[in-house]
Amino acid sequence: SRNIRLAVIPGDGIGVEVVTEALKVLEAVGTKVETTTYDLGAKRYHRTGETLPDAVLDELRGYDAILLGAIGDPSVPPGILERDLLLKLRFELDHYVNLRPVKLFPGVETPLGKARPEDIDMIVVREGTESLYAGAGGVLRRGTPHEVATQESLNTAFGVERVVRYAFDKALTRPRKKLTLVHKTNVLTYAGDLWARTFDRVSLEYPDVTTDYCHVDAASMFFVTQPERFDVIVTDNLFGDIITDIGAAVAGGIGLAASGNVNPDRTAPSMFEPVHGSAPDIAGQGKADPTATILSVAMLLDHLGLAAEAARVEQAVADDLVERLTGWAGRTTHEIGDDITARVTG
Amino acid sequence: SRNIRLAVIPGDGIGVEVVTEALKVLEAVGTKVETTTYDLGAKRYHRTGETLPDAVLDELRGYDAILLGAIGDPSVPPGILERDLLLKLRFELDHYVNLRPVKLFPGVETPLGKARPEDIDMIVVREGTESLYAGAGGVLRRGTPHEVATQESLNTAFGVERVVRYAFDKALTRPRKKLTLVHKTNVLTYAGDLWARTFDRVSLEYPDVTTDYCHVDAASMFFVTQPERFDVIVTDNLFGDIITDIGAAVAGGIGLAASGNVNPDRTAPSMFEPVHGSAPDIAGQGKADPTATILSVAMLLDHLGLAAEAARVEQAVADDLVERLTGWAGRTTHEIGDDITARVTG
Ligand SMILES: CC(C)[C@H](C(=O)O)[C@@H](O)C(=O)O
Ligand SMILES: CC(C)[C@H](C(=O)O)[C@@H](O)C(=O)O
Repeated sequence: SRNIRLAVIPGDGIGVEVVTEALKVLEAVGTKVETTTYDLGAKRYHRTGETLPDAVLDELRGYDAILLGAIGDPSVPPGILERDLLLKLRFELDHYVNLRPVKLFPGVETPLGKARPEDIDMIVVREGTESLYAGAGGVLRRGTPHEVATQESLNTAFGVERVVRYAFDKALTRPRKKLTLVHKTNVLTYAGDLWARTFDRVSLEYPDVTTDYCHVDAASMFFVTQPERFDVIVTDNLFGDIITDIGAAVAGGIGLAASGNVNPDRTAPSMFEPVHGSAPDIAGQGKADPTATILSVAMLLDHLGLAAEAARVEQAVADDLVERLTGWAGRTTHEIGDDITARVTG
Repeated sequence: SRNIRLAVIPGDGIGVEVVTEALKVLEAVGTKVETTTYDLGAKRYHRTGETLPDAVLDELRGYDAILLGAIGDPSVPPGILERDLLLKLRFELDHYVNLRPVKLFPGVETPLGKARPEDIDMIVVREGTESLYAGAGGVLRRGTPHEVATQESLNTAFGVERVVRYAFDKALTRPRKKLTLVHKTNVLTYAGDLWARTFDRVSLEYPDVTTDYCHVDAASMFFVTQPERFDVIVTDNLFGDIITDIGAAVAGGIGLAASGNVNPDRTAPSMFEPVHGSAPDIAGQGKADPTATILSVAMLLDHLGLAAEAARVEQAVADDLVERLTGWAGRTTHEIGDDITARVTG
């Protein structure tokens, strides 16, 4: 089989540490991988003022996939690296599906006293290229008592329909075949109307999928009180950002939450990254859990058609998580990576 | 002391049931209250097409306060009653502070396995008159493949500063004196910048208040994993909507979550309402918990300067909640109202 050509962006803070471990696991799978590392992030920004130069972006388009650690540092004003690097990648590479599984693995402690693994097993399909993330907006009379600041949520039939279709297809692959639209149609009446109409229209083509609607505030509550309500969720970019963090919390923490920024049409490489950030407070101390990034590698393999390899990585993680029950606390980033690698190797 | 002139809007579904009990408790406090009931809501909308006639709005301005049950019914298209009644009241009466305590009372079961009452005790100061709730936006080519739908978040220095000041003042009254700004400054760069700058500037006037910032996605996670991080929170209208529902979930459920739509300048009456909705599925069956509305009455009394009376109602609720531990399940709406009333009467 051909080599996977992988672009790696370790990024900032713990990004570097978790990516190192994830690449070790990837190598252990036995698939031939050729990696090229890109030094994008806070350091490069401080050194050269660059976030994502056009030439780099063009090069990135040539890979089969991208693995990203984490981007962001308090030394950079908020918004710069997010807008001009992280979100620019998602937008330029048309990652219109931001896929975020929310799954409680057996053995993992959840803050929800009564939740069992079978109660928390969903996939959030977060739209990735529209809404308030478009960056539209402006400011007038900045810094005066008369300042006005706006943010605009841009939503298109094209953009909503393609992610809704993806979510219906995804729901078909799941035992429960249930899809919930999460939005705030009662307040965001224009955008909500477009989402709800599109969802209803597309649903007619999927008679086997059970559909449901939930306002984002109620959904946020149900993630805590009745997570078993959800199977597949499709939602707007901002709402997806929020509910997947609640999902990460109830499923055992941000150290385990994987994600894929997927371009389902494959007109550009998809990008896989943990949901967590660069955590500058614990960076360089070997304290970060690389599991989220390793699970992101499983998603990457799956996306590239290597389902068996993906399953092996996920199983290795699952086995490792069960062991944690019996007191494997205190392992370093490195040790966790080694242990999961050993399981993958077999 | 003078009579409290109270406008009552029971509204739809369980709204009617919970308001009945809350008024019983209010009467038991011994304060002279003169109530006038307004039949706004789904029924009136179906009968006359009216949501909030100007004449009614003008009348409402004349009261000392408003008590609202819940508004909304599936028979009315989403957005109509919300925009033209509920939000119109908040906007027209300039309820720029939406005050939502998140407090785990002793004896109340929380879905968070390890949380104790001292871990969950915060107040969310949600802005009530700006942002995406302004209703700005539009649609082009509706129903075609080229449809574009927008929603605009409108934020002003005037609107942000007044609610931020209120929150700092509120933080001063709390033992911990800690105030956290919750926003999404890394993506909503224009609005976030206005919020962050205003927060920082006003903070200089409050050296005794410890300040903190948290992105809304991280805050949503921390509500579940580390609720003890928070004391007072100030946030945007939409973010406040979402996090207060998570707050309600972790503090024992939506049946206990009270709120006040407050006009601190007293240029119009403030409005008190439970956070929960009209719950049409259980309406008319005596299953609704009136506690949230009763706690909203306590907030109402406090707002009207009747702190001792407010404390009595809150204590009666607290005592009732402890009793629930020892098996008072299955009481009807009416019975819970009676029991709390009896405690208030003493
Ligand atoms: C860092 C930030 C721009 C990003 C987002 O809001 O999408 C992050 O929170 C995420 O969820 O991947
Ligand atoms: C009904 C709806 C318009 C309202 C809101 O979004 O503010 C509700 O969710 C609330 O929190 O009071």
